[in-house]
Amino acid sequence: MTTHDTASLSTRQQAALGSGADFWSTKKVGDIPSLVLTDGPHGVRRQVGASDHLGIAASEPATCFPPAVGLGQSWDAELTGEVGAALGVESRALGVDVLLGPGVNIKRDPRCGRNFEYYSEDPYLSGRLAASWVRGLQGTGVGASLKHFAANNTEHDRMRSSSDIAPRPLREIYLRAFQHVVQQAQPWTVMCSYNRVNGTYASENRWLLTGVLRDEWGFDGVVVSDWGAVQDRVKAVAAGLDLEMPGSGGATDQQIVDSVEAGELDASVAARAAGRMITLAARAEAGRAVQVPAFDAGTHHALARQVAARCVVLLKNDPVAEQTLLPLDAGRSLAVVGEFARNPRYQGGGSSHVNPTRVDIPLDEIRALAGDGTDITYAAGFTTDGGGDAAALCHEAAQAAAAADTAVVFLGLAAHQESEGFDREHIELPAEQLDVLAAVVGAQPRTVVVLSHGGVLRLSTVADLAPAVMDGALLGQAGGGALADVLFGRVNPSARLTETVPARIQDTPAYLNFPGEHSHVTYGEGLFVGYRWYEARDLDVTFPFGHGLSYTSFSYTDLDLTENDQGISASVTITNTGERTGREVVQFYVAKPDSSVARPPQELKAHAVVRLAPAESGRVTVQLHRADLAYWDIRGERWLVEGGDYEVRAAASSRDVRVTSVVDVTGDAFVLPLTLDSTLGEVMATPGAAEALGALMPIPAADAGNDTLGVDMARMMASLPVGRLLSFAGGAVTTDDLDKLLTRINTGQA
Amino acid sequence: MTTHDTASLSTRQQAALGSGADFWSTKKVGDIPSLVLTDGPHGVRRQVGASDHLGIAASEPATCFPPAVGLGQSWDAELTGEVGAALGVESRALGVDVLLGPGVNIKRDPRCGRNFEYYSEDPYLSGRLAASWVRGLQGTGVGASLKHFAANNTEHDRMRSSSDIAPRPLREIYLRAFQHVVQQAQPWTVMCSYNRVNGTYASENRWLLTGVLRDEWGFDGVVVSDWGAVQDRVKAVAAGLDLEMPGSGGATDQQIVDSVEAGELDASVAARAAGRMITLAARAEAGRAVQVPAFDAGTHHALARQVAARCVVLLKNDPVAEQTLLPLDAGRSLAVVGEFARNPRYQGGGSSHVNPTRVDIPLDEIRALAGDGTDITYAAGFTTDGGGDAAALCHEAAQAAAAADTAVVFLGLAAHQESEGFDREHIELPAEQLDVLAAVVGAQPRTVVVLSHGGVLRLSTVADLAPAVMDGALLGQAGGGALADVLFGRVNPSARLTETVPARIQDTPAYLNFPGEHSHVTYGEGLFVGYRWYEARDLDVTFPFGHGLSYTSFSYTDLDLTENDQGISASVTITNTGERTGREVVQFYVAKPDSSVARPPQELKAHAVVRLAPAESGRVTVQLHRADLAYWDIRGERWLVEGGDYEVRAAASSRDVRVTSVVDVTGDAFVLPLTLDSTLGEVMATPGAAEALGALMPIPAADAGNDTLGVDMARMMASLPVGRLLSFAGGAVTTDDLDKLLTRINTGQA
Repeated sequence: MTTHDTASLSTRQQAALGSGADFWSTKKVGDIPSLVLTDGPHGVRRQVGASDHLGIAASEPATCFPPAVGLGQSWDAELTGEVGAALGVESRALGVDVLLGPGVNIKRDPRCGRNFEYYSEDPYLSGRLAASWVRGLQGTGVGASLKHFAANNTEHDRMRSSSDIAPRPLREIYLRAFQHVVQQAQPWTVMCSYNRVNGTYASENRWLLTGVLRDEWGFDGVVVSDWGAVQDRVKAVAAGLDLEMPGSGGATDQQIVDSVEAGELDASVAARAAGRMITLAARAEAGRAVQVPAFDAGTHHALARQVAARCVVLLKNDPVAEQTLLPLDAGRSLAVVGEFARNPRYQGGGSSHVNPTRVDIPLDEIRALAGDGTDITYAAGFTTDGGGDAAALCHEAAQAAAAADTAVVFLGLAAHQESEGFDREHIELPAEQLDVLAAVVGAQPRTVVVLSHGGVLRLSTVADLAPAVMDGALLGQAGGGALADVLFGRVNPSARLTETVPARIQDTPAYLNFPGEHSHVTYGEGLFVGYRWYEARDLDVTFPFGHGLSYTSFSYTDLDLTENDQGISASVTITNTGERTGREVVQFYVAKPDSSVARPPQELKAHAVVRLAPAESGRVTVQLHRADLAYWDIRGERWLVEGGDYEVRAAASSRDVRVTSVVDVTGDAFVLPLTLDSTLGEVMATPGAAEALGALMPIPAADAGNDTLGVDMARMMASLPVGRLLSFAGGAVTTDDLDKLLTRINTGQA
Repeated sequence: MTTHDTASLSTRQQAALGSGADFWSTKKVGDIPSLVLTDGPHGVRRQVGASDHLGIAASEPATCFPPAVGLGQSWDAELTGEVGAALGVESRALGVDVLLGPGVNIKRDPRCGRNFEYYSEDPYLSGRLAASWVRGLQGTGVGASLKHFAANNTEHDRMRSSSDIAPRPLREIYLRAFQHVVQQAQPWTVMCSYNRVNGTYASENRWLLTGVLRDEWGFDGVVVSDWGAVQDRVKAVAAGLDLEMPGSGGATDQQIVDSVEAGELDASVAARAAGRMITLAARAEAGRAVQVPAFDAGTHHALARQVAARCVVLLKNDPVAEQTLLPLDAGRSLAVVGEFARNPRYQGGGSSHVNPTRVDIPLDEIRALAGDGTDITYAAGFTTDGGGDAAALCHEAAQAAAAADTAVVFLGLAAHQESEGFDREHIELPAEQLDVLAAVVGAQPRTVVVLSHGGVLRLSTVADLAPAVMDGALLGQAGGGALADVLFGRVNPSARLTETVPARIQDTPAYLNFPGEHSHVTYGEGLFVGYRWYEARDLDVTFPFGHGLSYTSFSYTDLDLTENDQGISASVTITNTGERTGREVVQFYVAKPDSSVARPPQELKAHAVVRLAPAESGRVTVQLHRADLAYWDIRGERWLVEGGDYEVRAAASSRDVRVTSVVDVTGDAFVLPLTLDSTLGEVMATPGAAEALGALMPIPAADAGNDTLGVDMARMMASLPVGRLLSFAGGAVTTDDLDKLLTRINTGQA
């Protein structure tokens, strides 16, 4: 491609570059080529044939990798990078320039219908996994689209609703993963979300799209709208949007031309957006020259199985009658129960829905691994559509379980119970499934539950009933094989929860503020999302954030912390104390109990994955970055690292802390000058100020007021802004006097 | 006084009327007299001699009635009216024109240092009790000052902090009691608070002081600043402030003159404020002509005792070894334990602190009622200043308890542990007091606890240990006698909690959002304050809102509901089923489970007090007002009564519902016209719209997308604003087409 500049394009051409030609493509303008953008993020949804207006026609077969809800459970950035690269290979094979992912919205409430497309309730983890995915994808010459920017945490009324969030949670929770990915992985595009952020549509939010994204974070790519997210393209372009999708048959191109001609939109702003589209086209053109392997469906299916096995969380594995339940012994008979064993639920509904190259059936895979000599029976137990004779199905399942040595019960949510586009109203498994489980466990104590679902479920009943529980979330097309691998111990489970499993929905942080009403959602829980909430409120949970068992065990010793220029270097020794080789996800939580601002009791700030043979030890070293230690200071509108002691906890889960140590960190320099709004307490705490103020006017002694008001008057007046002394000095002091005094104090002359 | 009008006053004179002459008085301007405003609300704090700049010099003796924390527990509007009238008599005797009260801020968090000056966590109850107090006071010719307007719910950084509140909780919780008092009792003045409301100082908040207070509610009195709450008088006057207190030696008067002369402040605005001051002076002058009884300290002390006895909540009264514990038998020996029995805590610290005419000592009053023949011992048990030998004091208390027939243990918070000006950091009783209680109960199972405190305490340990618990909160100068009256059954307790006693501070609604930081408080719990929170989250509490026992018992039968023009008329029959005459506080909670908006599970909307002899029945009829059934609709910015079924619960506490019934209420007419922002779901629900829209463009069938996206496309698209069809129709429809269609639908032509 020859170099382009926007000067050679007319305003009409510039405008044309900034909206779709159809549902999936941009327009060819001059010799600037059309680009193809297609849904991800866990597979390529490349529509077959001509585009339809709603993008719902059939798509080409592609590998369905685990959706983010499953993939995130790996806690493995190397793995997400491999998945990104594989998706790039398939994108290239299918002629796709930009794959629409990753999604790094925070799972604020378990009821959000689109949680399956996101990684975690934690921004650190979401950002680390997504950044690696972007690097993997973009290494193949295909662009990513980081979405949905920002604070799109509910499906209800998603195209109008305003996410009303205070500055600290917005920065520290909801924007944090976006910031990390933009700064560390440079995605070609960022997709602005449908919703409003503090009253302004994301697509029209200049603060968000320009102030934060470009000016603060240095983003140099294209901002593309979520499909249909533009309600006023002129306002959107002025705010920093570059590409409206899917387009409007040219109607909004004309609006851009008209508004430039009328002087309402600066011509340079329209040109700037077009310039970014030209840069994107250049990146795509260069990308098409990157050498990548040919797409082989079989190879990718095998990868998908390997990935999926890394995503299975072993929630519980209690012995039954002193016998280990998992891994299963291939030689012992099994009763497999549950509709999901033969009709697996492996991805979510909506724009990310992939047409898989093939689908592993769990029952078949279990049979394959159990071997020919093993007796394996199957009973559906329940239906997912409300049909069938529930009592008979339940009875049949219990009988099958009783007759076998062990039962494996597949429970979960059906596709129609959760998807993009609507939120759940509860987090319950269907009651008939719990009935079947109770019946099976009653007949067969050796019962393993396998769960399939996109959103968090209440699991206290399941955990009370079943001695072993395995959580697959959504595992993609090879999930059936992966589950079999973990059940039989071909893969030792190492995945961890990326979301807390609460004891009750009433305990969830946003319970009373979800999904909002009349197009407003108040983020009332503030910073306290996910485990930050359950810990701050000291609530029991069924399974904590970061939880996941292994078929082996690990010890943690010798945590060493050192401050360095980048933050804190932490090292800990992990030893495999069990009898199988296994991977351990080592988690580092940071606490600052003496913080001057509200903080969660602890926050995940680093993690590492280590693979160890029995009795083997490994030294794990991680860097905790200063940027991750900082809080957002609303006075200075900046990130601020407080100085002093930080406690670092090396942990196997958020509630399984193994070793703790403390390190002194150098704080950022930050002094606010005193003003008339500074309180008497703040002024008096400044060296020299008490004397200087006392010379100007009498300041009450600590015991003044004790007799008449029953209070320490000095304490009561500590919160008085000094400017108000005008009132309390009864004319004895003027604002000018006070101003001069503060200047002297601020300049060290007091 | 001759009639005045502002036209006869110069701008300088007008300005002079609007700020204090000294800490307690306005200026005499021409023949407009100076007015005296003095702290209340539970007694008159009339300073002796000349004013000092901080208002901390000694004050005249006056009756200390129960502070609002105690008075509110009466749940008795007739009683608060009597107290208001008595305060008016004392104000008149002391030359006070305006008494600074009542305080109707909502007790959002138990840690707020000034909660003792407020009535309740519930706006209905606060408003009803305060309105009656205002009518009582103003009936004597003395003006009230309704305070602190508004959303002043923390002492921390109170002079800068912004209370950041969404519209519904602001209207339905934080402004509701103010609205009721303004509209039903016409206070002469309203006091604007120190804090900011959604970013703007209350004193400069035009929306609050003019839009809501005057234009919506019809307030015609004076807005006075809290003392020192004005940070910019010109902005404040422009926003609707009339009187700055305490004044600034004329400095801000000059600012008003200058800004009027410079054309920055409209002269009519300055004149309007002065006009309101003239009206206030006229009201005060007319008030001084109202005939009132002479103030007799003895009579008022007797009233204070009678009132205080109505404010004592009997929290628990379990029999011990099958013997009733309370009321005490005057003939049996008693061990009285606790420093508060001889040094009672009966009022809070700060501006409301009254110099009492006398103080009843609980120990003396107990001795007086027990009679000469009864053996009464006393042991301090603990000190309130950390002095003394704790182990020895504890041992002495336990020995005294063991030697007596019954122990009465006085526990509570000392004055230095809570006051205006700072917030508590926890809600614990001092640990040494709990140790003493454990020792006493160990020695003497027949133990009664009597509590004195301004803010809510964690009582689970107390309630676990002691078979009987009596809550005095703060009872004023005659509390000692009142407690004796209730202990010995001379008064049958009938008071009720006005705040929930939570099981743990971690369970409180604002736990993680209090007291805010960097001058912002996020009201993240929204509508769910107090019992609204504990019920919505299904949390156990130690004692629920509205709880209080009696020495008799009552049954509730025959709840009848009728809709009328004013709302709902509810009648219920109450029968005294015990053996003593007693008063019952009958509470009416309203639930609307099918509401289209978020609502607390139930809300108090009416109550009544009935006094019944043993076996006597009474029919209680209350009116539930339509205004109290309404929610604040943010779309229409108006109150809206939803039509349909309302469940009304007649209850003895928020968790002791006795009879329930349902009534159908006519809803307010409210139709929002369809716009381009209306969703497809909203349009399709409008009669005729589906056909009209379908004629314009194809709308996806319910099963579209099922195969390819795994979703119900129609459901997913229901949240699409129709204006966005411009994108999804790919140019097949224009905004103009859609606009015309909506007009046809809105006008019934579709």
